[in-house]
Amino acid sequence: MGLSEFDLIQNYFVEGAQRVNRQDLILGIGDDCAIVLPKTQHELAVTMDTLIAGVHFPKATDPYDIGYRCLAVNLSDLAAMGAEPAWFTLALTLPDTDDDWLREFSQGLFDLAEQYNVALIGGDTTRGSLTISIQAQGYVPQGEAMRRSGARSGDLIYITGWPGNSAGGLQLIQENADTDNQGELQFGFLRPQPRVLLGECLRGIATAAIDVSDGLLADLGHIAQASGLAARVEQLDIPLSKALVAAFGVPVALDLALTGGDDYEICFCAPADKSTSIREIARRLELPITCIGRMQDGAGVSLYDDRGELVPILKAKGYQHF
Amino acid sequence: MGLSEFDLIQNYFVEGAQRVNRQDLILGIGDDCAIVLPKTQHELAVTMDTLIAGVHFPKATDPYDIGYRCLAVNLSDLAAMGAEPAWFTLALTLPDTDDDWLREFSQGLFDLAEQYNVALIGGDTTRGSLTISIQAQGYVPQGEAMRRSGARSGDLIYITGWPGNSAGGLQLIQENADTDNQGELQFGFLRPQPRVLLGECLRGIATAAIDVSDGLLADLGHIAQASGLAARVEQLDIPLSKALVAAFGVPVALDLALTGGDDYEICFCAPADKSTSIREIARRLELPITCIGRMQDGAGVSLYDDRGELVPILKAKGYQHF
Repeated sequence: MGLSEFDLIQNYFVEGAQRVNRQDLILGIGDDCAIVLPKTQHELAVTMDTLIAGVHFPKATDPYDIGYRCLAVNLSDLAAMGAEPAWFTLALTLPDTDDDWLREFSQGLFDLAEQYNVALIGGDTTRGSLTISIQAQGYVPQGEAMRRSGARSGDLIYITGWPGNSAGGLQLIQENADTDNQGELQFGFLRPQPRVLLGECLRGIATAAIDVSDGLLADLGHIAQASGLAARVEQLDIPLSKALVAAFGVPVALDLALTGGDDYEICFCAPADKSTSIREIARRLELPITCIGRMQDGAGVSLYDDRGELVPILKAKGYQHF
Repeated sequence: MGLSEFDLIQNYFVEGAQRVNRQDLILGIGDDCAIVLPKTQHELAVTMDTLIAGVHFPKATDPYDIGYRCLAVNLSDLAAMGAEPAWFTLALTLPDTDDDWLREFSQGLFDLAEQYNVALIGGDTTRGSLTISIQAQGYVPQGEAMRRSGARSGDLIYITGWPGNSAGGLQLIQENADTDNQGELQFGFLRPQPRVLLGECLRGIATAAIDVSDGLLADLGHIAQASGLAARVEQLDIPLSKALVAAFGVPVALDLALTGGDDYEICFCAPADKSTSIREIARRLELPITCIGRMQDGAGVSLYDDRGELVPILKAKGYQHF
């Protein structure tokens, strides 16, 4: 017999939730609903993502990393809209009640929650195979949310950080299940850094944005489609981390950067006259932001090599659950 | 091979979501986040519930009923706070992509969503054992949410509808897996009616409220504990439906009404001088509302028979997942 559901919630989640204090949270965990009082003249961005053991992360993943990651992927969606995180709810399905597992999981979850001052306000715990759904909400000043559909012909295309690190890290984790996974690439997968501050800085600068979960080209394709444009990407401009190239060599590193999923970097478009502002943001946030191409009339995503020739792209290489 | 994730979402959920139009929904399904613009001078009530096949409903349950039920239990939580439903997000984990199943599931989901004008604004679909998490939000005028903690000594205790019907219905379904489950009790389980209109009417009248998911006595116990009071319940006043008594006899019917879960009726407390208002609400909504006892100083829930003698209650008979 494990703890009762009520004790379990009380012990880990009520206590953890108290690490974040928010004026706009009127009533937290413990009633039929939480009550929040949204600030005026702001819209709320709302997202929900599910992670399943063995599908979205290896079953042997450290519970701390699972807790961190399941919130990070949701904050990443908020970042892609330019939203400031506010609250989240957690639906946690567990095969059993394991004290150690819950302690570490909640530690990872709340370490990240505290970093961004986002409050756990409710949820549900049930018994079943390990499945974690988080719904997160954040503020955007009215009318300033960045959508996928706003790109204009001539906009430059940017990517943050080092795409492919996460997919490379996952491959290393899967090949070396016994190591402690403390390398840069492994961390890219286990502890993706949601680009929350960047998202807020890009309001009024980016015309369109998306977070890279399915793969850079696939997600850029969503911007192109939603904006009714084509995206032209220069292969030579794709940023490849030294660690990724060292581990896999350039050709595989490039493939991982273009089509590997789970990066949670932000791909965005902005007019050419914003490039100085974007360099300034990159400097202030100490975050690499690389221009990788340009939006133009047409449809689809095309990749060009350094001789200006079209590189074939395998279709629909983005990660698909179905 | 089934449909791709994107086609699947497009076909059933984007289309279904269009059955509800809301002014406060700025951007629906299809971007990294949905965008809503909450109305001013209102708080938002936020709830999240997970249903798992084989745990919260029999695996053979009609997909229409699953779709209906997973939204209904969330709307019931909103009702218990006195909130008017606004939007919801859906995390749907499916073992495979079954066209017929999805059509029926989404039909049940959106039939109920349309009834209460609550909009599906986002979510996630993943592959795994059938698990449905819904997060729902609704409006309460600022400061008017009904909490579990507001009951006062001397308040009368009320229950809506016919408690026990759902637990009885589930028992009939499990015993007669081959029937078509169209009876009143079966419907009590398969299609619980969230008491949304009642919840809104009770603002300013009820001092505390909860929706009965774990069993009447267990959930009343949550009100008693949160309010720092005792609840005295008169066994003779527990409303038993004719159908429940006909199917199970009075002793079992009573036990089902007191301890069976999944009723999604509202148990609430109100001062004695509100009894005329409550009768008026019952008449207007054509909903039975029965006074079953009284809050008093002390702790815990006590059941009394018609001779004023204490009836022993098995401890913690409410449904627990862990």
